[in-house]
Amino acid sequence: MPASPIRKLVPFAEEAKRKGVKVYHLNIGQPDIPTPKEGLDAIRNINLSVLEYTHSAGNEPYRRKLAESYRKIGIDVDHNEIIVTTGGSEAVLFAFMTCLNPGEEVITPEPFYANYNGFATTAGVTIVPVRSYVKNDFALPPIEEIEKKITSKTRAILICNPNNPTGYLYSKEELHQLRDIVKKHDLFLFSDEVYREFCYGGETHFSAMQLDGIGENVIMLDSVSKRYSECGVRIGALVTKNQEVLSAALKFGQARLCPPGVGQIIAEASLDAPKEYFTGVYNEYIARRDFIVDALNKMPGVYCPKPKGAFYTVVKLPIDDSDKFAKWLLQDFSYKGQTVMVAPASGFYFTPGAGRDEVRIAYVLKIEDLRNAMDTLAEALRVYPGRTTLE
Amino acid sequence: MPASPIRKLVPFAEEAKRKGVKVYHLNIGQPDIPTPKEGLDAIRNINLSVLEYTHSAGNEPYRRKLAESYRKIGIDVDHNEIIVTTGGSEAVLFAFMTCLNPGEEVITPEPFYANYNGFATTAGVTIVPVRSYVKNDFALPPIEEIEKKITSKTRAILICNPNNPTGYLYSKEELHQLRDIVKKHDLFLFSDEVYREFCYGGETHFSAMQLDGIGENVIMLDSVSKRYSECGVRIGALVTKNQEVLSAALKFGQARLCPPGVGQIIAEASLDAPKEYFTGVYNEYIARRDFIVDALNKMPGVYCPKPKGAFYTVVKLPIDDSDKFAKWLLQDFSYKGQTVMVAPASGFYFTPGAGRDEVRIAYVLKIEDLRNAMDTLAEALRVYPGRTTLE
Repeated sequence: MPASPIRKLVPFAEEAKRKGVKVYHLNIGQPDIPTPKEGLDAIRNINLSVLEYTHSAGNEPYRRKLAESYRKIGIDVDHNEIIVTTGGSEAVLFAFMTCLNPGEEVITPEPFYANYNGFATTAGVTIVPVRSYVKNDFALPPIEEIEKKITSKTRAILICNPNNPTGYLYSKEELHQLRDIVKKHDLFLFSDEVYREFCYGGETHFSAMQLDGIGENVIMLDSVSKRYSECGVRIGALVTKNQEVLSAALKFGQARLCPPGVGQIIAEASLDAPKEYFTGVYNEYIARRDFIVDALNKMPGVYCPKPKGAFYTVVKLPIDDSDKFAKWLLQDFSYKGQTVMVAPASGFYFTPGAGRDEVRIAYVLKIEDLRNAMDTLAEALRVYPGRTTLE
Repeated sequence: MPASPIRKLVPFAEEAKRKGVKVYHLNIGQPDIPTPKEGLDAIRNINLSVLEYTHSAGNEPYRRKLAESYRKIGIDVDHNEIIVTTGGSEAVLFAFMTCLNPGEEVITPEPFYANYNGFATTAGVTIVPVRSYVKNDFALPPIEEIEKKITSKTRAILICNPNNPTGYLYSKEELHQLRDIVKKHDLFLFSDEVYREFCYGGETHFSAMQLDGIGENVIMLDSVSKRYSECGVRIGALVTKNQEVLSAALKFGQARLCPPGVGQIIAEASLDAPKEYFTGVYNEYIARRDFIVDALNKMPGVYCPKPKGAFYTVVKLPIDDSDKFAKWLLQDFSYKGQTVMVAPASGFYFTPGAGRDEVRIAYVLKIEDLRNAMDTLAEALRVYPGRTTLE
C-alpha cells in the first residue's frame, strides 16, 4: 500500500509546530465533541473482575439494544442480523472478505474514503471507481456510468452515505436507482452509514436497509465512532438480512475471537445518551458547516458545495496541485503565526490526476478556530505561488 | 473456513445445560483469574472527555512502558520496534500480510492453534504443518523434518512458545536449531509468545527475540489477554527489529486506524501489577497443572504429557474418535448430574485423521471444579461405547 498524501504531510506539520507555528487541523475526522457521559460513566462504574472474551458477534444485550435503536429510526432488524465489529473498519473488511473472492470487483463513486483501498488490498479485491464531480456537488454519477463498469467480476457496489469525503447525502431517488441495478445484476450493495446522524437542513437519511426487494443484497456498515465521538473504542457493526453472509462473516469474527469488550460496554451505554446530546452536536455542526461553506465561497476562485451530511467537504481551489499546496502551507507559509493542514483530494481519487485542485476540509473545530483557519487559508490562496488564473 | 470442532459442539453443550446437567468447560482458554486491579482502576478513574483515535501503532507512553517491560526480561527492544495490535490475533494477521504474498507458505508444528487457519485464509497464505507427537510430549519435530518442508514458496516458520494447544515449552537448544535453518534459508521466524509468563517447574522462557544473528528475521507476536486475564480488551503487539516489516505493518495498522484506546489504557496500567499478582497466578496454575496431569495419568489407557507452559495439555485417550467422544459427553452422558466439554484435537491438526484419540484440556478452572471434572471424565472413559482396547 502506498502512503496516503495526508500521512506524507505529517512530518511537515510536526516541523511547523516545532518552529512555533499554530497548525489548524482541517485534515482529520477526529471530532472534538465530548463522548456521551453515559458511555464514560459505564466504565467508571464497571463492576467486572475479569475482562473476558465476549461473544464473537458481540454481547447479546448490546446487539438487542442496538437493533432496537435501528428499529426506532425505521431500519427493521433483529439482533441476530448484527455482527459487532472492531470499528467500522472491520465491518468493511468482513463485507469484502465475505462477499467477494480475490480478484473480484466492487464499484464505488470516487472520491471515496481512502482506507477502502487498504481493506481491498487485504481482501485481494479490486475497487472500480466511477467519477463524481464537484461541479455536480458530488451527486451519484449517472446510473448508466455505473452500469458501464459492471463486468463478470463485479460483485458489489459500495456507497458511503452521508459521504466521506464529500459530505454528499444520497437522496431516496438515487438509492432507488442503485436498488434497480443491484437487483438487475444481483450484486451486493454495501452501504457505509457511519455518518447517518449527521444530516443537515431538514434532510432525512434514507438507509439502504429501507430499500424494498433487495434485503438479501444489502449490507449496512456502521460504527459508533462519529455518532458518539468515541472513535477510540473501535466498535462498529455489519448488519444484513442475508443469513449466508452473516454466517460467513461470523467465521471471520470467530477467527479474531471478539470485538473489544470494554468498547462494547461504552457503546451500549452511549445508546442511552439523551436527545439533547444529539441536538447539541447537530446545532454545533450545522453552525460550523454554514460558517465554513460561506467563508470558502467568499474566497475568489473557490467553489465549495453545501454538504448535507457528515462533517467534511471537498472544495475546489484555484491552485495548481493540492499535494504541493498542502505541503507549502506547512513548510513555507504562515500568517499571524498560523497555518492550516488540509487533506489533498488526490488521496480520495483512484483516477490519476483527478482532484488535483481539490482538498477535503473537515469542520471538526470550534467556530473561533475555524474563523482563524479560514482567514489563514484566504491569505494563503492570495500569496500561493502556484495559484491558477481566476476563471 | 469450515466450522471448528469446538464450535460444532456448542449447541450440544447448551442442550445439556437446558436439561440441567452441569458442564465443566475444559475446552476454552478463558482464564477465571481476575484482571489486575491496576488495569480496572485505570478505567474507573478515567479522566478523558473524548475517546479519540490513538496512534495507529498504539499510544507512545504504552509502547515505551511495554518496551521497558521487555527489556527487564532480557528482550532488547525500543518502543519504535513495537506496533500495538487489536489482540494477538491481529499481530498474527499483520505478520502474515506483511511478510508473505498470497500463495506463499508458512511452516508450523502441528497440532497448532486453530485460529492460525483463519488468518492464513484472510491473508491467502498456506500453512504447511510438520507433525509433532504426544509420545514425544510434542517436542519440536526433528529439524530435518522441518527442512524437508521448505520449498521455493516458504517464507516463514511459525511457533507458539509456550505452545497452545500442547503446553510444550521450546528449549533454548530447539530455538537454536530453528535459528540455524531460518538463517540458512533466510526465512522469517514468527514467534507467538502470548503465554510467556506461564512457565512451570523452574523452567525459564527463551524468547526468539533473544536469538543472536537473526534480528531481521524474527517477529514476536504478543498479547496481554492471558498475561493479565484481560482477553476482552483486545490488545496485542507485533515486535520486530526489522524496519521494513514495521513500516509495512504500520500501513495495515493505519488502514484500520488504531487499536482499541480504552484497552490500551487498561493494558498500560496492568504493567504496574505487582509481583504478587503473578506469583498468585503462577501458584494457582502450577497446582492445577499438577493436579490434572496426575489425575489424567491415573486413568487407565490415558497418557498426558507434563506441560511446562501455558495452561493447556493435549492428552491421548483410549477412544475411537475424539469428535464423537466430545459430542457423546454432552449428548448422551452424565455422572452425578455433571459432564465435561473437551476440545477434540482434530481441530488443531491439519493432517486428516491426526489426533483422533487426543483432546485438548485447558486447566482454567478452580481445583475443586477440576476434581469434579476429572472424576466425571474418568467415569465417562469407563463407560464410553467407543472405548478402544487398553494397550
